[in-house]
Amino acid sequence: MVAITKILNENPNKLISLNFFSERLNAAKSTLSEDIVIVRETFEKMQLGKVETVSGAAGGIKYIPDINTEDKKKFSNELCEVLKDKNRVVPGNFIYMTDLMYNPKIISRAGIILAAFFSDCPIDYVVTVETKGIPLAFEVAKNLGVELVIARRDNKVTEGPTVTINYVSGSSGRIQNMSLAKRSIKKGSTCIFIDDFMKAGGTALGIIDLLKEFDSKLLGIGVLVDNINVDKKLIHKYYSIVEFSGMDNNGDALLEPSKLFK
Amino acid sequence: MVAITKILNENPNKLISLNFFSERLNAAKSTLSEDIVIVRETFEKMQLGKVETVSGAAGGIKYIPDINTEDKKKFSNELCEVLKDKNRVVPGNFIYMTDLMYNPKIISRAGIILAAFFSDCPIDYVVTVETKGIPLAFEVAKNLGVELVIARRDNKVTEGPTVTINYVSGSSGRIQNMSLAKRSIKKGSTCIFIDDFMKAGGTALGIIDLLKEFDSKLLGIGVLVDNINVDKKLIHKYYSIVEFSGMDNNGDALLEPSKLFK
Repeated sequence: MVAITKILNENPNKLISLNFFSERLNAAKSTLSEDIVIVRETFEKMQLGKVETVSGAAGGIKYIPDINTEDKKKFSNELCEVLKDKNRVVPGNFIYMTDLMYNPKIISRAGIILAAFFSDCPIDYVVTVETKGIPLAFEVAKNLGVELVIARRDNKVTEGPTVTINYVSGSSGRIQNMSLAKRSIKKGSTCIFIDDFMKAGGTALGIIDLLKEFDSKLLGIGVLVDNINVDKKLIHKYYSIVEFSGMDNNGDALLEPSKLFK
Repeated sequence: MVAITKILNENPNKLISLNFFSERLNAAKSTLSEDIVIVRETFEKMQLGKVETVSGAAGGIKYIPDINTEDKKKFSNELCEVLKDKNRVVPGNFIYMTDLMYNPKIISRAGIILAAFFSDCPIDYVVTVETKGIPLAFEVAKNLGVELVIARRDNKVTEGPTVTINYVSGSSGRIQNMSLAKRSIKKGSTCIFIDDFMKAGGTALGIIDLLKEFDSKLLGIGVLVDNINVDKKLIHKYYSIVEFSGMDNNGDALLEPSKLFK
């Protein structure tokens, strides 16, 4: 059971055959089946996601990670408290959140939460733009069992031919570049976009444009913090963990858990 | 046992008290202790790392992840085979490895392998330079239970005051910038540097310089691929998974598992 739990936990959203377990663990399939039932029941009881069984010759089991609803609410509330710290306000009224975006403990939780929203979508890639959203996008990709793709702001000699588009960044208000190696996405793919913060959605529009160049489509967006002062009608499947609505007169950041976590 | 395995697996290198387990799982400490012994023995038998016990009031258990030696060798060999694919050679005789650096399945394994080399060092931060090494550095940080710090090539308005140094990049041969927010590293910290590829070590020298500005020290370096044609005497603790020694006359990349994995 320990080994099954470990293998499932390290291979989220991957179909693993009973043969793999039985060879790896040197165990009879009947014993394995019983143990898998216990693992599944424990995960369900603790609301840690689902263990699905796919029957047939090409079948096996698949673990779809999740976190229980109470823990999601707690996580979102704690994140708000941390972000409200006055020391986080940097010149220009931005909130410093780089340390959170690079904190494995926070980002692995956030990654499971965002991935769970998309677990029933047929997704080929998780896309992000360098730099701050990369660890979060990586965690979401891992939990969905797909590859990560990172658009860059400049071309690199080590990537071969690239496609570049221009977009208007919300935070700087300037026209910027976004590049992606031609070989990084297969034509006709479906993707989701993950980032740290969204204001007006200029970057997301850029991603939609960039994906068009690969005959590919954006299915959804997930961010850690959403600026809800700006109305965005980019895409139907849009999820955030924390909502930001500006600064009050005392210079305090107005932050609340997203509607889903209240 | 399922729940203990899951919690340990998600909190590598973190000391978790028996109280936490007993509250979370609503179980008696005596039962827990027995289950922990089984988890520890299974991990040891499968060579998946150590479960250490720290006794006393502030004690608990701590999981230090690892992978068994045979799997490390296999992983390193498979990586060489994948990288040898002729389609990976891009103009300028670089090897395209971006897809591997962003592949969660590959990078989570590589992250455990590199982290295991440093599991007995007192490390405060894992440092990298944007962009390609970020997911790997993030995984190493997660496995070591510490935070990640990413040096950027430009200053960002959202980061507050930054420290910038210049360094000579090995791959482009040009002088480049490397910036780090002043608040990102506490003075007097010890760090390791993780990256995708190392040629002459110019970037690593830049990191050493940058850390000096924070009165901090580089303890070790870990990369996925090391160019062994260039002699580097940067630092004692230097580890790689694959060794690259240039191209042969047929335009094939010369790649071998690092000495440790032969």
